[in-house]
Order: sequence, then C-alpha cells, then structure tokens
Amino acid sequence: MISPQQLESVLHTEIPITQAMQIAVKSCSDKEVTLVAPLEPNINHKQTAFGGSLYSVAVLSGWSMTYLLLERLGVEAQIVIHQSEIDYLAPVAATIEAHCELSSDIDIEKFNKLMQRKGRARLKLKSRIVSEGKTAVEFDGVYVCIGH
Amino acid sequence: MISPQQLESVLHTEIPITQAMQIAVKSCSDKEVTLVAPLEPNINHKQTAFGGSLYSVAVLSGWSMTYLLLERLGVEAQIVIHQSEIDYLAPVAATIEAHCELSSDIDIEKFNKLMQRKGRARLKLKSRIVSEGKTAVEFDGVYVCIGH
Repeated sequence: MISPQQLESVLHTEIPITQAMQIAVKSCSDKEVTLVAPLEPNINHKQTAFGGSLYSVAVLSGWSMTYLLLERLGVEAQIVIHQSEIDYLAPVAATIEAHCELSSDIDIEKFNKLMQRKGRARLKLKSRIVSEGKTAVEFDGVYVCIGH
Repeated sequence: MISPQQLESVLHTEIPITQAMQIAVKSCSDKEVTLVAPLEPNINHKQTAFGGSLYSVAVLSGWSMTYLLLERLGVEAQIVIHQSEIDYLAPVAATIEAHCELSSDIDIEKFNKLMQRKGRARLKLKSRIVSEGKTAVEFDGVYVCIGH
C-alpha cells in the first residue's frame, strides 16, 4: 500500500505545479484520499481560495484515488481527466481540503475486466471540499485509464 | 479601454498563482480575451498540460471577459466563479491558449440593469482552448458579479 508521503512525491514529480500550490497528502487508503493545500499560495484578491486552485486540488484527489486503485489492481495505465463539473457553494478562507472516496457503487471487478480486455476503462468519482464544517465545493470527474 | 498589459497585471496581482503558471494576456477587447501560458510550468508526466492548469487558464479567460465588461459599464463588483463544466477533447502539448468571446446572445443591457437594481447578476460564458488547430478543451462557466 502506498503511503501519503509516496503519493505526495508522485504528485509533485508528475505534476510540478502542485509544488507551487503546496499540495500535500493528508491521508490515503484503498477507500479514500484527502489532499490539502494552504490558502496563501492559492489566494485571490478576496482573501479566499482561487477557483482554479480549488479545482486543481479536487481533480487531483480523484486522480490520486484512481492511481491508488490501479496500484492495488496491479494495472499499469495512464490516467486522464476526461470531463468534469464543479459547483462552488461557499468561499474557502482557510486551508483547502479535498476529499474523494471510492464509492461502494463502483464496480471494481468490471473496471478491472475492462482494463484487462480493452486496456481502457473509465471511473466516475465525486470529490468535495469542506471548509469550516460545510461543503464549499462539489466536484464530479470522469477519469479515463489507458493501459500501456 | 484596458490594455493586455493592464489586464495581465490585474491577474498577477489578484491571483498570485497565475505568476507561477506564467499566464499572460495575448489580446483583449470589448468582445474577446485570449490568455496564454507556456507548457513547461504547467506540464504533467505525459508531457502535456495538466488538466488543472487548462481549467485555470480557461476559467480566467471568462473571468477576464467579465472584468472587462464591468469596467466598460463602469460597475464596481466582485466576480466569483459559481459553476462550470469542462470537456477535455484532446491533450495540449504546446502553449496553452484560451479564448473567450462575449457572445452576441448575451443581453448586456439586462445584465447592467440587474447590477444597478439588485447589485448582483450572472454571466454565462464559453471558453475554448485550441491546440494545433483543433479544439482541445471546451469550458462553460457561470460567473456571478456582486456589487460593492
């Protein structure tokens, strides 16, 4: 199982702008990923988090969840964000914290079979950013995995 | 009328992470905004642009279009991204270039009246990122303007 430190190193190496955003992995497991980023490098003129940074932390929480699933299944594949929707419900005026869970609705066996047979499968994941106890951002992403 | 240099300075001051992304204003007018960002600071492990950077350049092209409209109308307001959808149609392996036009479908008079009467109005804008002659990203954003 990959540790938060290992996942963080993957993010910083594969997507260097995550270093400027100071994105860190708070926790990760088979079932969930929580990424954090401090407000200061991601701030806007309203002293809240820039919408593009909120998007980046959210999309990477789903990317990371997908990465961990592929590792667990022993599948080598590239992960590409294909489509997403984001709703900004409230401003974030503190640390950005994005959480993604591998919902029990997801048919992992089917996903794995598609990867084996077709070398390609998609994963729909929801992420949310919670700030001061309430949901500030809802994010839906469709990730496509393409085998080598 | 605001020059590309002035708009770029607004972006870099109001949203400092745009400096790390090296976002620049290629052109701007009453009718359109084109933002660019080099691939290198926004690259991912596939040697193409990170989806979060593509999103940021797209959302800021719409933000800038809204900013220019408010300036033209002489309205002081904050601009907040409320909701958006993004479709990634093809990878971007060169300079990111996001283009937003103020569509003739937009009822500017109605927008202005709402700002005057209610101090609040929304604007739906489309942005696209073109790479090597074809559309690589389609972006739809809903921006809310809130008067002071």
